[in-house]
Amino acid sequence: MGNIYAGVDLGGTTVKLGLLTDEASLIRKWEIPTRKDDGGKQVIPDIAASIKKNMEEEGIRFSELAGAGLGVPGPIRQDGYLEVCVNIGPGMRDMNPVKDLSGLLGGIPVKGGNDANVAALGEMWQGGGKGYRDVVAVTLGTGVGGGVILDGHIVAGSKGMGGEIGHMVMDWDWKEAEVCNCGNRGCLEQIASATGIARHARIFMRESDRPSVLRDLQRVTARDVFDAAKAGDGLAEDVADYCMMYLARAMAYVSQVVDPEIFVIGGGVSRAGQYLLDLIKEHYDPLIKLTRGKAKLALARLGNDAGIYGAAKMVIDEREK
Amino acid sequence: MGNIYAGVDLGGTTVKLGLLTDEASLIRKWEIPTRKDDGGKQVIPDIAASIKKNMEEEGIRFSELAGAGLGVPGPIRQDGYLEVCVNIGPGMRDMNPVKDLSGLLGGIPVKGGNDANVAALGEMWQGGGKGYRDVVAVTLGTGVGGGVILDGHIVAGSKGMGGEIGHMVMDWDWKEAEVCNCGNRGCLEQIASATGIARHARIFMRESDRPSVLRDLQRVTARDVFDAAKAGDGLAEDVADYCMMYLARAMAYVSQVVDPEIFVIGGGVSRAGQYLLDLIKEHYDPLIKLTRGKAKLALARLGNDAGIYGAAKMVIDEREK
Repeated sequence: MGNIYAGVDLGGTTVKLGLLTDEASLIRKWEIPTRKDDGGKQVIPDIAASIKKNMEEEGIRFSELAGAGLGVPGPIRQDGYLEVCVNIGPGMRDMNPVKDLSGLLGGIPVKGGNDANVAALGEMWQGGGKGYRDVVAVTLGTGVGGGVILDGHIVAGSKGMGGEIGHMVMDWDWKEAEVCNCGNRGCLEQIASATGIARHARIFMRESDRPSVLRDLQRVTARDVFDAAKAGDGLAEDVADYCMMYLARAMAYVSQVVDPEIFVIGGGVSRAGQYLLDLIKEHYDPLIKLTRGKAKLALARLGNDAGIYGAAKMVIDEREK
Repeated sequence: MGNIYAGVDLGGTTVKLGLLTDEASLIRKWEIPTRKDDGGKQVIPDIAASIKKNMEEEGIRFSELAGAGLGVPGPIRQDGYLEVCVNIGPGMRDMNPVKDLSGLLGGIPVKGGNDANVAALGEMWQGGGKGYRDVVAVTLGTGVGGGVILDGHIVAGSKGMGGEIGHMVMDWDWKEAEVCNCGNRGCLEQIASATGIARHARIFMRESDRPSVLRDLQRVTARDVFDAAKAGDGLAEDVADYCMMYLARAMAYVSQVVDPEIFVIGGGVSRAGQYLLDLIKEHYDPLIKLTRGKAKLALARLGNDAGIYGAAKMVIDEREK
């Protein structure tokens, strides 16, 4: 059997794919659109065909493919059963994409995982968490994703809900009217995601007359908030502080449950860099009273490739069991 | 080598000990006082001597002892290093009770764990979580203890803080003045422990003139609160409801991090039985929106023996690795 692995990161718009060796060398990476006609029924066949085609183009024999890992944007069980994948369509509901993909790839081992968990594994293997085994990844993008890695392995959870920190309810007073995609209110995702930070900038501007460079912008983004905060804009500093305080509280909860060595912070918001880490640390450290040691904080390093790396790593580990 | 294991549950007042087979048959159990003279330096030698003496009395040869497990009331690392054990004394600080006990027992394998985690493992093995592999134990006693078991193993955490759910800050408004033992305010332990429930009964009585049978009691306990609530006393119902709402919120957080199959509720407060489980479930289920499935709830079954069983199981697993 070969030592080439396919890493597949299935998203709502595109599928990111890569071919890797078991020593983490990325041979090729590419993308295909996520075809949603037919409710998404073509997605898995498209992936299988694309892997075969790209292997051929790379001059790799199909027999060298030792396994494939698949990250999906939904809760997926250990056995590959997928309850629902809201971002794709009814064709990916109550089905088993892992078995389907394996079948289409000649029965090779395929392992599936939730996309956020899979990206976390990638960051542990070759990214911001390299060298650690107990890692929690926090992705601050359109939403807030999370992935818990303990002793080097994904904590998927009994219903695929492991690491779903974006839906921890952090604001029980529900001061705001907006309902989260999940149906609750006050979720971490509504506060600490790029969208949440931008929305809170609008709320802070509406609720006071304080001058701010943010008021000159047509449409405020999380990036604007952090840029202005770094430049000393008081209102922007307060927005960043408010939103990251809630993130730190959620991270303290995570530590009180699984106590990771390191948190790896990724997603668009993490482009704010060391300023962001310092701000989170300022709120996080004082909450941890039970031990002298505090979890480390680091930035994610693999960007959009984290899912490809993590998916490959998942099936490499499975094979080495 | 034999198949007899010693399970040791070291507490602030007494040490509970047991001799078990690897098939969970409890041959003998007993207790000794926790000797605190000398800051607790005699505790580990006392345990070793007591195991030897009881084996002799039971007619078991010392060579049949295959290992010992040790639960301690403090954060203990995988290698046995204990940072601090506040309930015992300075003689059990910055030391390694696991190595010490192994040395005193002729070098047999010894495995250490935090007492709450070890009790959780016991409940998974032979108690309320029997038949499950992803179990979170919640102990509502003087404090609130927690233990996270994933895939059958304790999640100790990188600094021994795994499962420390009692110190999740649940009330960020810090409406109350009292500071938790950990130094924070608003910890779950201050609300949902037996002590916390009793204190909240006093707060609720102070803050209104509502009649309640609790007002006739000299000193209200958590048991009084649940007895009165079961009998339909409105104020007692509200106290129980308030305290268990916060517990359910913390349990939702736990589910969003590790997504267990089942929560096992133990400790003195759990004597309120099915009424307690129903009340927690009423608050917990609506918070879980991401999956149709909800974690099961069950009562702990082993009582004070959970630590003995868990400690033995811990070293049995270690030996079978």
